Amino acid sequence: MKNIKGRERVIIENVSPEIDCGKYPVKRVESEKVEVSADIFADGHNVIRAVLIFRKQGKRKWEEIPMKHIGNDRWNADFRVNETGWYEYTIQGWVDHFASWQKSFKLKYEANQDIGIELKIGALLMQESQRQASPKLRKDISKWVSAISNTGDNPAKAVALVLSEEVSDIIYSCSARNDAAVYEKILRVNVERKRSLFSSWYELFPRSASPEQGKHGTFKDVEDVIPLVAKMGFDILYFPPIHPIGASFRKGKDNAPEAGPDEPGSPWAIGSIEGGHKAIHPELGTLEDFRNVVKKAAGYGIEIALDLAYQCSQDHPWVTEHPEWFTWRPDGTVQYAENPPKKYQDVLPMNFENDDWQNMWKELKSVVDYWIEQGVNVFRVDNPHTKSFVFWEWMIGEVKKKHPDIIFLAEAFTRNKLMDRLGKIGFTQSYTYFTWRNSPREFVEYLQDLTRTERREYYRPNFWPNTPDILPVSLQHKNEAAFIARLIMAATLSSSYGIYGPVFEFMYNVPHPLREEYIDNEKYETKHYDWRTMTRMRKLIALVNKIRNENPALQTTWNIWFAEVQNDQLLCYGKTDDEKENRIFVVVNMDPNNTQGGWIKIPLEELGISPGIDFEMNDLLTGNKFKWNGEWNYVELNPQIFPAHIFRIVQ
Amino acid sequence: MKNIKGRERVIIENVSPEIDCGKYPVKRVESEKVEVSADIFADGHNVIRAVLIFRKQGKRKWEEIPMKHIGNDRWNADFRVNETGWYEYTIQGWVDHFASWQKSFKLKYEANQDIGIELKIGALLMQESQRQASPKLRKDISKWVSAISNTGDNPAKAVALVLSEEVSDIIYSCSARNDAAVYEKILRVNVERKRSLFSSWYELFPRSASPEQGKHGTFKDVEDVIPLVAKMGFDILYFPPIHPIGASFRKGKDNAPEAGPDEPGSPWAIGSIEGGHKAIHPELGTLEDFRNVVKKAAGYGIEIALDLAYQCSQDHPWVTEHPEWFTWRPDGTVQYAENPPKKYQDVLPMNFENDDWQNMWKELKSVVDYWIEQGVNVFRVDNPHTKSFVFWEWMIGEVKKKHPDIIFLAEAFTRNKLMDRLGKIGFTQSYTYFTWRNSPREFVEYLQDLTRTERREYYRPNFWPNTPDILPVSLQHKNEAAFIARLIMAATLSSSYGIYGPVFEFMYNVPHPLREEYIDNEKYETKHYDWRTMTRMRKLIALVNKIRNENPALQTTWNIWFAEVQNDQLLCYGKTDDEKENRIFVVVNMDPNNTQGGWIKIPLEELGISPGIDFEMNDLLTGNKFKWNGEWNYVELNPQIFPAHIFRIVQ
Repeated sequence: MKNIKGRERVIIENVSPEIDCGKYPVKRVESEKVEVSADIFADGHNVIRAVLIFRKQGKRKWEEIPMKHIGNDRWNADFRVNETGWYEYTIQGWVDHFASWQKSFKLKYEANQDIGIELKIGALLMQESQRQASPKLRKDISKWVSAISNTGDNPAKAVALVLSEEVSDIIYSCSARNDAAVYEKILRVNVERKRSLFSSWYELFPRSASPEQGKHGTFKDVEDVIPLVAKMGFDILYFPPIHPIGASFRKGKDNAPEAGPDEPGSPWAIGSIEGGHKAIHPELGTLEDFRNVVKKAAGYGIEIALDLAYQCSQDHPWVTEHPEWFTWRPDGTVQYAENPPKKYQDVLPMNFENDDWQNMWKELKSVVDYWIEQGVNVFRVDNPHTKSFVFWEWMIGEVKKKHPDIIFLAEAFTRNKLMDRLGKIGFTQSYTYFTWRNSPREFVEYLQDLTRTERREYYRPNFWPNTPDILPVSLQHKNEAAFIARLIMAATLSSSYGIYGPVFEFMYNVPHPLREEYIDNEKYETKHYDWRTMTRMRKLIALVNKIRNENPALQTTWNIWFAEVQNDQLLCYGKTDDEKENRIFVVVNMDPNNTQGGWIKIPLEELGISPGIDFEMNDLLTGNKFKWNGEWNYVELNPQIFPAHIFRIVQ
Repeated sequence: MKNIKGRERVIIENVSPEIDCGKYPVKRVESEKVEVSADIFADGHNVIRAVLIFRKQGKRKWEEIPMKHIGNDRWNADFRVNETGWYEYTIQGWVDHFASWQKSFKLKYEANQDIGIELKIGALLMQESQRQASPKLRKDISKWVSAISNTGDNPAKAVALVLSEEVSDIIYSCSARNDAAVYEKILRVNVERKRSLFSSWYELFPRSASPEQGKHGTFKDVEDVIPLVAKMGFDILYFPPIHPIGASFRKGKDNAPEAGPDEPGSPWAIGSIEGGHKAIHPELGTLEDFRNVVKKAAGYGIEIALDLAYQCSQDHPWVTEHPEWFTWRPDGTVQYAENPPKKYQDVLPMNFENDDWQNMWKELKSVVDYWIEQGVNVFRVDNPHTKSFVFWEWMIGEVKKKHPDIIFLAEAFTRNKLMDRLGKIGFTQSYTYFTWRNSPREFVEYLQDLTRTERREYYRPNFWPNTPDILPVSLQHKNEAAFIARLIMAATLSSSYGIYGPVFEFMYNVPHPLREEYIDNEKYETKHYDWRTMTRMRKLIALVNKIRNENPALQTTWNIWFAEVQNDQLLCYGKTDDEKENRIFVVVNMDPNNTQGGWIKIPLEELGISPGIDFEMNDLLTGNKFKWNGEWNYVELNPQIFPAHIFRIVQ
């Protein structure tokens, strides 16, 4: 019986959130809440109490929040995490003997049973709590005890006293919590900076940044593009790999097996005699030039994101310096990437089972450290699900020890469980299936899945309507309405989103005849774009980003709710900020060709709208205002004019 | 990186069953299966393997069962536990490089790519596996390797060879499993004897066993009743407490606050000057007499179950010997049980928070040890949810270390989470809400909940149509049909069930005017019954128990399935044994007053019934045989004749 706490009667179990038995932390950003619930109960019929206790890791003192019984032995409470770093939380529960006594005392009193002895028991319990009381409270309690002990012929007064809120509160506050149970695990929260949850990404190929047709773009050209990106309201500017591109087996236009003499190759074929993951492709400029881009972007409030693709061209220095990191074939050649029968001769996968894995891990991490030194805080990680999970867990953990603000976006378009795992082991944000959801119904289901299941605790979605790899069916040969709808959905369903530009703004919609991607893919060639004209679509993007920045409700993904609507082409959803002051309501017509109208049900009470009184729906996109009244209101959207509303609700 | 297994690529998570992160074991009885599943995956596109590994605790060697991928990265396998005691299980997973090679080789071959080098790689992988191979297999492999290396102009032969089942199986069997991942926890199974799952209980008050009106029954009288209990086919005979009954505050007839001079009191008011929990109520007989009852019962294959009620009358020796085990009031009286405004002055609860808890626990456990010494192996535990959970966990754990065959039945009619907890911490069986489920729909839902959720792993239901505390509405003023229906449901829905007799057989159906219990409750008085006559109902009970004993399908609860039926008064369900030889199908008309008929859908394929061919429904109750054909068949039951069928399906 040595290690048994035999007098502990309260059971605390089934705590939520708790990821994989506490192995992984819950994720939050600064100032978010952690909502904790648990099954808490004891034997018998006593009144029990429970508190959620938490602290910033490293602090000695725990703070506590009383938990509330919400029915069926389930209790909950929440706490706010105000600083980045790590928090810890757990639960304490105990039998409250004074409150138990009050409960049974009250019942006996109401049943006209003799309460003389009962009052004495209450007085004893109160005296016990004096031991933990401050001198002032000790005096108060003494006063009450003697009042109870001398009820005279007015027991009603004593009864009122012992059941009063004041006495209840003070005795509770002095309670010794004898034999309190503490949940067996200390659970953790990883609190990251706000941009981990709220970010607007713009992806461009620096080599296509030249204002001059036929010229390879440079970082200097990119500097000139930054003001436009800023005007559109983005805060993360992401570049595909900027490193030297291999010459051997270089791919030509449209993924041709051989490149012509002037073809630039895919930037994902990293490494040449000019260097590897820490070098810069000479045609883009120098390290100095890159630093200037970072600086210039920072001046506009924009962070540069680099692509982290742990793979090599055959010319990468690692191939000769560390042949053991690759797989060699009996004919002396090195194994390139394959997905039989497809071959990717320009790219070598790294062998995560090699004997020298420790040195390889260190070198891979040093790549991240190197770019952090150059001012980079955001990495978009290429295909993380094809590298070992245990490596990522280590690498991200190590990097974040020193640099907790680094953001890693997982570009894993794969099976759910792998994507989940990447979120659990530390990726800040993740690509999603957004791109392949098509009907309002699918969106409702998908967002429920992302925000109303345990996934919400560790998987932060980032919605992309397009990428250099994907021109989805929803945009292929589609009109402006389809592009606008996708933009607005990405930007308002999820608080992090991104577009691959400028092909998105220019509404490129012609797919490759065989693949779900762009024809004449930019991955294999340098493009020329108009980086100057502020088109209608660019203005709209700027407006959408402005709306996101001005409305706190849109700065989180977790607050989304969906409205009932009597038209299955309309997607209707709302977001409200924590203070319930900023109430956004979005309606999107997902049919890009036909006008769709329908009655929409607004949950008045939940939104704090007084029934019977008009409320105003201010369309933040057009400035139009509509008077609505009651639960059901009608909306009609002609996609030829505009396919969506982003309303702010005012009453 | 010291403690990191950097080359492990397989992830094993979300293992089921795993109760509270492995804190509690899964429950099984001898020869049951444990079905284990998990999410198992790796980065990339390699072929992975997983095995379920298990062993009896204490054995050195693990046995293994290959797991199967059942879709969406979920894998499963099962193992059988053949001995009582403890088993351990976990999962191992690894990348199968040879199978990965085979997969990609096949695709390349089919795409007509050059396979020369590929065959060499395959040969190398085969040679690697030779290291772990037996001398005989080593030779086989050498033979294959040279066959592959000398394909001559017939590569098709080499291709067929390397993809053959023989080569696949043998290379798999010799695989080194380099860098295999093992799930981080070893999970446990507590395997109990068969009666823990399959048992038929009969409850009687020994003091009512006398054949003579007005005389207090004795153990000697009980000996005469045992043949009847055996004839009815029960295997556990359970007695309410057999200990001396307190004199102070003894309850009178119908729970009257004071007993008359000749009233016997409630057997649950345990303890008098004649002794406490280890003593026998003198009017019942001696310890010797009790032992004779145990012996006589054993001769009929019946085990005696005692009631374990950890509470005391005011006259219990513990009250004076261990006053600290009770709660004392300021007026010097000891606190009796209350549920204000109700008072139970004849019963003192024990204080599980007292400072001397270790000695109290030891004494409480010694009660169990004492009765085990007298030949008792089954305990029905009174209100375990009003004693501390941590005590039960310790006590049951300690008892079972020495006596793994002891059965503890938890009589907790309380909230779900408390009942669940009792199951998790070691109770063998549990009372249920069976008694308060009324419509077929409610039964379907309740049985799904018991058998298709995680509860199935730790909570073994025991169904009782009545108890001395409960005459449910479903039997109040009801006719024979209602009694028969309840009996058959209890005995065939659950593999453990019990009745409180002989009031059940005699169909006592008059409730107390205010409470859901019998009028003139036997708890407070000695009754006189006819223990000899083999009534129609007793014959039916005997038949139902015979059917249970002869049909393995009815000897487990977990195999239940429900059939669709087009009448919501009919409850239709089936059970099939593991070998799919014994197929039982039950139809109950839950309307005790009216004939109900309806079409019932039989899932032919799952039952192994050939479509288009007649199959026979043999009613094991009546001997009647019906020819059925096809999925839908019609059943009609007139409750005035008989309200149920228990069919055995034959084809």
